[in-house]
Amino acid sequence: MIFSSTLLENAVNEFAKLPGIGKKTALRLVLHLLKKDIDEVKNFGDAVIRMREEINFCTRCHNIADTRLCNICADRARKGHMICVVESIRDVIAIESTQQYNGLYHVLGGIISPLDGIGPDQLQIDSLLKRVHEEKTEELIFALSPNIQGDTTIFYISKKLKTQPVKITTIARGIAFGGELEYADEMTLARSISNRIPVENYVGNKF
Amino acid sequence: MIFSSTLLENAVNEFAKLPGIGKKTALRLVLHLLKKDIDEVKNFGDAVIRMREEINFCTRCHNIADTRLCNICADRARKGHMICVVESIRDVIAIESTQQYNGLYHVLGGIISPLDGIGPDQLQIDSLLKRVHEEKTEELIFALSPNIQGDTTIFYISKKLKTQPVKITTIARGIAFGGELEYADEMTLARSISNRIPVENYVGNKF
Repeated sequence: MIFSSTLLENAVNEFAKLPGIGKKTALRLVLHLLKKDIDEVKNFGDAVIRMREEINFCTRCHNIADTRLCNICADRARKGHMICVVESIRDVIAIESTQQYNGLYHVLGGIISPLDGIGPDQLQIDSLLKRVHEEKTEELIFALSPNIQGDTTIFYISKKLKTQPVKITTIARGIAFGGELEYADEMTLARSISNRIPVENYVGNKF
Repeated sequence: MIFSSTLLENAVNEFAKLPGIGKKTALRLVLHLLKKDIDEVKNFGDAVIRMREEINFCTRCHNIADTRLCNICADRARKGHMICVVESIRDVIAIESTQQYNGLYHVLGGIISPLDGIGPDQLQIDSLLKRVHEEKTEELIFALSPNIQGDTTIFYISKKLKTQPVKITTIARGIAFGGELEYADEMTLARSISNRIPVENYVGNKF
């Protein structure tokens, strides 16, 4: 692509660095912004820069936060004795959006994956063990990726907590709501049969 | 989507205002930027803001420009007696990227479309007529959308230039390179037959 303006070219190149955005899409987005008021474009740029400069990670659960503690940890109405263990901030947003969970979180920052060089030390596991001990957590709910790495992480942490009086659970694996049985993979189908639930527990139970 | 950080939420909302970017994509882009160095994110935000604040439109051809004249108009190596008339900046970039055209441009800012309330007065038509007169333009090449509005615009401008000694052409319509005859619409196929070209002119001719 050949530009007659360096300012335009720079803006397009910056957008094109984002994942999944090619040069043509970048140009479309930039020309869209060019048509907007200066104030709107400033709001856009400033929101992005401020987010990166000012954002913190919650000292308790490592979720994203505007201050030292995230909104969730700071909310005294939430059940403090329940911790949902997730890989990333994105998972917190996904679970929060269901509006079905009223406990706290702990963001590991990944899962144990020796092939990618990620061991327990690179993750927020020690701080989780400390929290469970100090906060006298009653239940730990694992909401990790349904794969070998996720299972390894669950197994590793559970072992470390063997002597603690904490109930350890994991979110249900099974056929997705609206999913078709015949298209489910064997592993999922097998697990959903072996972990079958009584119908009286099936509908409307909160976490 | 429920966020535990207002800073994050603002950045996601700003991204989600862009055309074709939903909330989920916006979140993905913002979390990508969150992982980058502060300097990189500043470069991104500043490039967008600077582009909007400092960009000019060329006083001669209305193309986007960093200064009073765009790079193309300022380039003395280009053929000044040839003007390619386009709708938008995007078309200039598309034609420049072919590296086949060595004349100047004129960006109309749209095409005549009474149904959308766009008449000749809203477009840069008067300035084009003035240019043709003052610059003693020898050839005007229309590269407008192949539809009724584009044809109307060509017809309107051509009529205004009837008394001027300027050659008026339009880019060839026809079957796209690599296109399949059977999938072409009738209009395109019909025009490509009636505007057929001698084979000796077919390959490798520059504009």
